[in-house]
Amino acid sequence: MKKCPEEFIDFAGKLADISGRVIRRYFRQPNGLSAKDDLSPVTTADLEAEQEMRMAIAAAYPEHGIIGEEFGNVQTKSDYTWMLDPIDGTASFMIGRPIFGTLISLLKNGTPILGIINQPITAERWIGANGQSILNGEKISTRKNLPLSQAVLCTTSPDYLFSEKAKEFFASVSKKARYTVYGGDCYSYGLLAAGLVDAVIESGLKPHDFCALRPIIEGAGGVFADWRGQEITLDSSGDVIAAGNRKLLEEILKSA
Amino acid sequence: MKKCPEEFIDFAGKLADISGRVIRRYFRQPNGLSAKDDLSPVTTADLEAEQEMRMAIAAAYPEHGIIGEEFGNVQTKSDYTWMLDPIDGTASFMIGRPIFGTLISLLKNGTPILGIINQPITAERWIGANGQSILNGEKISTRKNLPLSQAVLCTTSPDYLFSEKAKEFFASVSKKARYTVYGGDCYSYGLLAAGLVDAVIESGLKPHDFCALRPIIEGAGGVFADWRGQEITLDSSGDVIAAGNRKLLEEILKSA
Repeated sequence: MKKCPEEFIDFAGKLADISGRVIRRYFRQPNGLSAKDDLSPVTTADLEAEQEMRMAIAAAYPEHGIIGEEFGNVQTKSDYTWMLDPIDGTASFMIGRPIFGTLISLLKNGTPILGIINQPITAERWIGANGQSILNGEKISTRKNLPLSQAVLCTTSPDYLFSEKAKEFFASVSKKARYTVYGGDCYSYGLLAAGLVDAVIESGLKPHDFCALRPIIEGAGGVFADWRGQEITLDSSGDVIAAGNRKLLEEILKSA
Repeated sequence: MKKCPEEFIDFAGKLADISGRVIRRYFRQPNGLSAKDDLSPVTTADLEAEQEMRMAIAAAYPEHGIIGEEFGNVQTKSDYTWMLDPIDGTASFMIGRPIFGTLISLLKNGTPILGIINQPITAERWIGANGQSILNGEKISTRKNLPLSQAVLCTTSPDYLFSEKAKEFFASVSKKARYTVYGGDCYSYGLLAAGLVDAVIESGLKPHDFCALRPIIEGAGGVFADWRGQEITLDSSGDVIAAGNRKLLEEILKSA
């Protein structure tokens, strides 16, 4: 993995602080709600948090690019681009459940070199960069010794597996796993990096989701691939498998 | 609802403190795990927390009965029986997700007059008794103005809906709701009581689950019924619907 300068890791932490302050103000406030046409819940918090992070980036690194979920893209000639998703897990946020997260990623020439998952209510922060992952200052690593039959599998919602083929794939893996836990969004990947979950399988992820996740998963010793076992890149389809180790990934791919 | 003496509400809070201290010690400690034959994860924390609560009850109210998930029943001639479930949401606990809860209920002659949901990691405590519900000292009430088409529906896992008929029932309601959020256990009922979730539909609940939930839901102005709309009692099957108000419950029952 390409090196991420410490300066940018510190700055990304400041972005997480900024978004956390905004998000905490709106958590469990029933009036801060609006709806996108596709009915996914997007809150004022989402918009304000992204705007404040964008302002901070523009002030500190006016030459850097920005790709955000809510306000589109700022393209520059810089090697560096920030990817922002203030609230991944909007459904959990909306119902007042503290297992959503803010995703912040820094890309160098299209490759994510830094990822943050920030949970501002429980005050948990995962940082992946330079080949390691930390959770609130402690180095973490994935669980590596369990076969699929003893593994814990997570996915946010069976409703997000759109095609029949995707549903079948997931069902056949789930049947072989020890058990399946639902409803986690980015938080599940954080738990995987911390060695508490063995695999996460999801469909329809966007670059602003998976770019932040990859350095955290890989920095903890895990693997992050698409449903054919290919490495996740900016061009990936968004069908992802995160696993604690390559052997488990291969068992999952074979069991489909 | 029958009156619950203040003395017992205070004592139930002490039980929640006791179980919380035990549970926090084991949260995210990967070595505290064992497995039941049915593969549901049950932890040392579960056993220890129940044992400590039982000791406290036996010391304070030796004449009271106790029904616990882990150690069976102590039957007495007293009007009062305590029902304990130290960790409802064992899967969430096992993967380190702070949305499980300790359920404590006091029954008078078979009717729950007090319910507690205690989340020891986020330090949240719901108490329902004497016709009202509080969350960390604040009075809460359910959301009452949304039709099913705008309602947020929760269930822990589609895998827990065992029969085909149950799956169909859930799917037909879910299709009509605004959206469905998975993976909450007792925490979802707490969020319903706090006006953040509109309905929870589940199958296979046990008395030690639903006895604690009922005073919290009803104290917040919600309704708690089985899948035929009948009141939940000790003899209920465990197929439950909690809703913010009776109108929504009726819309759910009709939409099946």
